[in-house]
Amino acid sequence: MAPLRVAIAGLGTVGAAVADIILSRNTLINARCGREILISAVSARDRHRDRGVDLTGIDWFEDAAEMAMQADAEVVLELIGGEEGIAKTVCENAISSGRHVVTANKALLAMHGTALAKAAENASVGLLYEASVAGGIPVIKSLREGFAGNKISSVHGILNGTCNYILTTMRETGREFDDVLTEAQDLGYAEADPSVDVDGIDAAHKLALLASVAFGAEVNFHAVHVEGIQFISADDIAFASELGYRIKLLGIANQTELGVEQRVHPAMVPIDSPLAHVEGVFNAVVVEADAIGTSVLQGKGAGAKPTASAVVSDLIDIARNTVLPTFSVPLSELSQPKTVSLDNRQGPYYLRLMVLDRPGVIADVSAALKEEGVSVEVLLQRGRSEEGSVPVVLKLHETVEANVRRAVEQIAQLDSVVERPCMIRIEEL
Amino acid sequence: MAPLRVAIAGLGTVGAAVADIILSRNTLINARCGREILISAVSARDRHRDRGVDLTGIDWFEDAAEMAMQADAEVVLELIGGEEGIAKTVCENAISSGRHVVTANKALLAMHGTALAKAAENASVGLLYEASVAGGIPVIKSLREGFAGNKISSVHGILNGTCNYILTTMRETGREFDDVLTEAQDLGYAEADPSVDVDGIDAAHKLALLASVAFGAEVNFHAVHVEGIQFISADDIAFASELGYRIKLLGIANQTELGVEQRVHPAMVPIDSPLAHVEGVFNAVVVEADAIGTSVLQGKGAGAKPTASAVVSDLIDIARNTVLPTFSVPLSELSQPKTVSLDNRQGPYYLRLMVLDRPGVIADVSAALKEEGVSVEVLLQRGRSEEGSVPVVLKLHETVEANVRRAVEQIAQLDSVVERPCMIRIEEL
Repeated sequence: MAPLRVAIAGLGTVGAAVADIILSRNTLINARCGREILISAVSARDRHRDRGVDLTGIDWFEDAAEMAMQADAEVVLELIGGEEGIAKTVCENAISSGRHVVTANKALLAMHGTALAKAAENASVGLLYEASVAGGIPVIKSLREGFAGNKISSVHGILNGTCNYILTTMRETGREFDDVLTEAQDLGYAEADPSVDVDGIDAAHKLALLASVAFGAEVNFHAVHVEGIQFISADDIAFASELGYRIKLLGIANQTELGVEQRVHPAMVPIDSPLAHVEGVFNAVVVEADAIGTSVLQGKGAGAKPTASAVVSDLIDIARNTVLPTFSVPLSELSQPKTVSLDNRQGPYYLRLMVLDRPGVIADVSAALKEEGVSVEVLLQRGRSEEGSVPVVLKLHETVEANVRRAVEQIAQLDSVVERPCMIRIEEL
Repeated sequence: MAPLRVAIAGLGTVGAAVADIILSRNTLINARCGREILISAVSARDRHRDRGVDLTGIDWFEDAAEMAMQADAEVVLELIGGEEGIAKTVCENAISSGRHVVTANKALLAMHGTALAKAAENASVGLLYEASVAGGIPVIKSLREGFAGNKISSVHGILNGTCNYILTTMRETGREFDDVLTEAQDLGYAEADPSVDVDGIDAAHKLALLASVAFGAEVNFHAVHVEGIQFISADDIAFASELGYRIKLLGIANQTELGVEQRVHPAMVPIDSPLAHVEGVFNAVVVEADAIGTSVLQGKGAGAKPTASAVVSDLIDIARNTVLPTFSVPLSELSQPKTVSLDNRQGPYYLRLMVLDRPGVIADVSAALKEEGVSVEVLLQRGRSEEGSVPVVLKLHETVEANVRRAVEQIAQLDSVVERPCMIRIEEL
């Protein structure tokens, strides 16, 4: 069979790792897909940088957008990144000229996934993106194929390795967020501008894609409620352990009777939950569905090699002629589900208040909670301080989020409460 | 597109669950594969049993072997079971008459997988078996497709839910094997004849298939070293906890320089290993490969619905025209790797001896170990008994299996050692 010809746009660490796998695992890949995968063209910013792979004889394009239209290739790999600009143009050009697209770009797909899927379907080409969510885990394939006989009710998990590394290190060392973030930046686990990771945006991009493919719905990034991990303190992590929990940044998408709920926020998970033991840069995705019950997929979320592995698996699918609808079903079948407000969430909550150590504080806090019908399961108060503040921690019984929020607003107004209360959802997953 | 017509051989709990998914999830499946999946024929022992699904209008065959050749169907589901006999004939007849086969039958494939794959390849039909290993986990698909860009070095995990349920319950309750097995039989988690499960045979069937698809090798069940869990005592489980381990029945297939190592046996895994937290009837498979590093897939191993989910995912693949080589590569590319003897295993070991409580025993045991160059990391001796025996537990430093076995033979001969020593491999996974 004729080789599958591939053009690579972007030769950063992922692009170079993809080229390396294609070139060095040639025999293995040939055996597995019954044909050769051949890099016919590449485009990157600097032609002369040593990337550790031999690109001799491969067409070089200065302009990736031009390559996407003119390369002698059936597939274009978009490995440039960014939710707009050249990455988007490369995908659009490849599709409009009848080429399949494989991308690792979750930001682009979270923003323009439905439009690009529509273009791909019209052009009868594939838009594949296994590498955009948790490269070391075949989660898109599992949702779209492995669990295809199931009605999926929930997909949730740990989707950002940087945040998980920071939270793991905070727990293991007792250090504060800022301190650990700086170290993570020095080690290359966090970007110089860490906000896309620590604010939860990256996890939200991925969650929006998982929700689409799991529920056969249009991508709706703007429906994701997003909170980051920057307000989590070493105290919270220690109190969580004491209460039998771990704090993780979770992405959660639930199919409910009211519509689809999508949210990214720090949460406490029970210490015996499978997610509690996913540490460091690892990701994990939990799928709940009617036939399988619960399945958990765990692996490396980022890094050049796991991401490249996912890109190559998409290429092998194309080489084997497995090109499926982008979000599990054709666009005509894609739903536009209602967005469920987080106000409807029901569950237990953790609250940490920093209060002045004087009489009557607990009475005032309790009154605010009582007024909203919220009841307290555990109250922890530690230490004494005649001048400064002390933490008071409450575990609230299962209740509705709107009520907790109103109670927190009242508590925040109390004179003896000196900081904005920290509220963390408890997910008994 | 024309419907995909399916004939079901065997309407036990799995067959009925498959029929139920196909009939009740019709719209969802149509959307996902762009065509209908239609049950055109069934065959089972008792035509009149109520299976909770409406089979009105579907052709009924008394003889499944005849149905496999004559049904108006492109696919035959073999859900009868058994490594020989009618199940094998159904598969052979379906293939020889140009029909795809989907089966949940690990025993059949472990014994005849290569021959059936050859027949399928010659007839240009698919032989799909996702349901034969850990139904709730898309592990065959992950190995064959998701990780297809990787050189896989190891696939291992917890492959038998019955054994895992028994070991979990023994740990949680402190009860002995026989007692827990009886309860598991009463609860329906173990068969009346439990030997296929507790002797490790079922796990070995599955491991042989995982090794084939992971390494692109012919199925070689007879190369699997198999030990069961029946000799594990409540004492061993308690000592394991004390040493920081959990005891699990593991299936392990490693690609080594010498060949392929395949083994099923109880092993101790560190308490912070992902496998240590896979409890009850859950299965988990760990894949180690050059690009992804380590990935862990966890879900229900058995039960009608998870198994049916896997069968339906295979059907959806066929409906979408995704029919791949049975063991990842065409038969011409399948390797026949050398079998690596377990004598070569290197690792730490746990030994429990039941000894008479009299002077000199430890000296004799130590001498036997020293003679084989095996050194002791931990020695635990508990309790006193003037008449009966007491347990002595040793954790041995990493060493070669052949040496440990020779030392154990010597120790077993000692007058003061009253039972066959219990040796458990420690796997630092």
